Amino acid sequence: MSTDPRDDLTQIATASDLRDVWPLLSAEERHPTFGQLPRTEREDFFISLSAREQARMLLEFPPNRRRVWMRLLAPDDVADLIQEAPPEDREGLLELLDDFTRKEVHALLAYAEDEAGGLMNPRYARVRAEMTADEAISYLRRQTREHAETVQYVYVTDPNQRLLGVFSFRDLFAALPGTLVRDIMNTDLVTVGETDDQESVSRLFAEYSLAAMPVVDAEGRMKGIVTLDDIVDVVHEEATEDIQKYGGMEALDAPYLDTGFFSMIKKRAGWLAALFVGETFTASAMGRFEEEIARAVVLALFIPLIISSGGNSGSQASTLVVRAMALGEIKLRDWFRVVRREIASGFTLGMILAVVGFVLIVIWQRMFQTYGEHYLLVALVVAISLVGVVMFGTVIGSLLPFVMRRMGFDPASASAPLVATLVDVTGLVIYFTTAAIILRGTLL
Amino acid sequence: MSTDPRDDLTQIATASDLRDVWPLLSAEERHPTFGQLPRTEREDFFISLSAREQARMLLEFPPNRRRVWMRLLAPDDVADLIQEAPPEDREGLLELLDDFTRKEVHALLAYAEDEAGGLMNPRYARVRAEMTADEAISYLRRQTREHAETVQYVYVTDPNQRLLGVFSFRDLFAALPGTLVRDIMNTDLVTVGETDDQESVSRLFAEYSLAAMPVVDAEGRMKGIVTLDDIVDVVHEEATEDIQKYGGMEALDAPYLDTGFFSMIKKRAGWLAALFVGETFTASAMGRFEEEIARAVVLALFIPLIISSGGNSGSQASTLVVRAMALGEIKLRDWFRVVRREIASGFTLGMILAVVGFVLIVIWQRMFQTYGEHYLLVALVVAISLVGVVMFGTVIGSLLPFVMRRMGFDPASASAPLVATLVDVTGLVIYFTTAAIILRGTLL
Repeated sequence: MSTDPRDDLTQIATASDLRDVWPLLSAEERHPTFGQLPRTEREDFFISLSAREQARMLLEFPPNRRRVWMRLLAPDDVADLIQEAPPEDREGLLELLDDFTRKEVHALLAYAEDEAGGLMNPRYARVRAEMTADEAISYLRRQTREHAETVQYVYVTDPNQRLLGVFSFRDLFAALPGTLVRDIMNTDLVTVGETDDQESVSRLFAEYSLAAMPVVDAEGRMKGIVTLDDIVDVVHEEATEDIQKYGGMEALDAPYLDTGFFSMIKKRAGWLAALFVGETFTASAMGRFEEEIARAVVLALFIPLIISSGGNSGSQASTLVVRAMALGEIKLRDWFRVVRREIASGFTLGMILAVVGFVLIVIWQRMFQTYGEHYLLVALVVAISLVGVVMFGTVIGSLLPFVMRRMGFDPASASAPLVATLVDVTGLVIYFTTAAIILRGTLL
Repeated sequence: MSTDPRDDLTQIATASDLRDVWPLLSAEERHPTFGQLPRTEREDFFISLSAREQARMLLEFPPNRRRVWMRLLAPDDVADLIQEAPPEDREGLLELLDDFTRKEVHALLAYAEDEAGGLMNPRYARVRAEMTADEAISYLRRQTREHAETVQYVYVTDPNQRLLGVFSFRDLFAALPGTLVRDIMNTDLVTVGETDDQESVSRLFAEYSLAAMPVVDAEGRMKGIVTLDDIVDVVHEEATEDIQKYGGMEALDAPYLDTGFFSMIKKRAGWLAALFVGETFTASAMGRFEEEIARAVVLALFIPLIISSGGNSGSQASTLVVRAMALGEIKLRDWFRVVRREIASGFTLGMILAVVGFVLIVIWQRMFQTYGEHYLLVALVVAISLVGVVMFGTVIGSLLPFVMRRMGFDPASASAPLVATLVDVTGLVIYFTTAAIILRGTLL
């Protein structure tokens, strides 16, 4: 297509056309453009919106038109929508539902948003173990004509809703007509507890590559299914939280452009101030070396270089460990293996920087004569300090996520800025102590 | 279960038992434990492994037993496995396949690993538009009895493999027996180009919450499907790459513990050395203020505090923008909106730190008398510099990802360490210039 659909909004005729231009439309353009689509396209479009956008749109409709839109959604999506709506509107939205769905949604709202129960769909395809493949197919054909959700697996339950087995539509289709469901079903079940954390559910999905998993309560009764498309959202959400924490702030819990100015300042100022107060220890640490600085001002010039090298190498190490932990590649018990590895990495990386630093100082001295007659000694102090600081940064960066997890915090809070702050004070001590030893009798 | 399965490996009888203990088993324990499972459990277990683990395991089998295991896998999984195997083993593995599958796998291997074609499964359920619902069901029952992959959607193609429409099994089941496929199918298609980048494919999945998407070539001919479970892996992978780049290094492209020592050093040393060289400009910048430092050593004490505040606030801003870009929430054209917002955030955050800093210096002076008679002026210099440095850090941090993307780089390369390095030099200049103005006639 060569025409830009924004040029002529009346040309938009399908849900996917509208999806493409939606973020570009002003609030006034949205409703008329939406209204001109055929009914089914409008429905497709509405269903494809995020819960946040659905809530916003629904509340902009006149109250008498909300009911039909609300009833398009599966119970778990209704629950998400209600959680995104302002508290004062929630009761009103619940009243739009039929009694049966309202009960289901109420039950879902009792779960925390980030546990399996909060993600699950209480409607799923179920059959009895005694049916034949042919009976199961006609039974499912009737079942899906009544309910509105996609099906991929069929669950076999006993009369008490206890889960006995599962099979895929493929299994059902591949079975000969007279085969019993109990002979088709797979009884080696992977299930999720209703209060399991969504991050651990998402790890299970990654491990087993299933399209859906059954959610069961403590008695093994089936409560619903979590489907892979909910998990994709979870994976995005968890990565966003980790990345934001890792950047040295609280997770925003909403898209950047949708977050209010002051709520964003609040999420950022706390960590920033805490890091600032932590960093004031560098001023105290340097206070102890005031005399050395006064005697050899040249030492002050390399302070940012030394401490940032510690921070950068620490940031690399903590990134690696935080992410590997989030993916379940590294467990708490691996700490010693990781730290041993990072000591070797830190030493190697420190040696590389030491050589680069030494050579650069010698080159500048040749070119600009800025570092005085003892420049070789100064270069040696910088080089030795770099090995110490980079090793220290690397070890702290790799250990901190373990400490965080051990203490019950999110390892992602071992952020680049936090590691840098922890390393700065020690970096200064390493630097000035090395200087005191090597420069005694010459500069100091 | 109260017993730890590791205590008695002979008790392991199902794929999920084995899955739980697998990472804990030594190489010698793995094969016998695997061997004692029933056939179907062994198959389930093998299929659930990652491509990397499948390749490793397959190559440990005696050559005459490899064929059956290889043939368990869908063509796209075979292609992944082959890409994970050492180059010298690949030809041999391909020869284990039947001719038809080998051709399919060859075609898949021609795509780059990170494009849609490299993710897709060339086998999918297809019917003709003229069939009735009943005919489609029996046709699909025969089709699935021959092939091995899960089906969720059914694609309607013309005799030239051009894609006409799609419907879900739910749609098919819900249709009355005599309805024509052409009246069931949805023609508002969301398709993926065969060379589309996997990151953009994953964004499409997030937008439309579909379980699978058809891959088409430039002529609209259907080539295969990408399923949601491949996308979950992509989402994890892309987040890992972004996080690692964001931590100031190259992406590892393999689990941390599986990455060799020297290949890891290589991925880390490059950025670390580049940042180090960039940071040497701080030494040059400070060289210009050597006289000021000599006259007022107290100024040196606050250097780490000032520059780290710039780095930390810059890290927050770049984190937010990098992540919002990766999720498609922010586009290039939003740069002015974002920067305007970040100027206001930077000013507010800078004011907060300025107040904290001023108060802390006054308190310490009262307690330890370390900052001399002009401590109020020093506190003022620190406070004013903090506002400037934090604003500058925030603006640079939010702009850099836009600059990176504009220049064709990954915005995630606007890492916390890179932002900090860029901000450090300017931070020093802001600090010493403020000092020169305010302390003229007193300390300087």
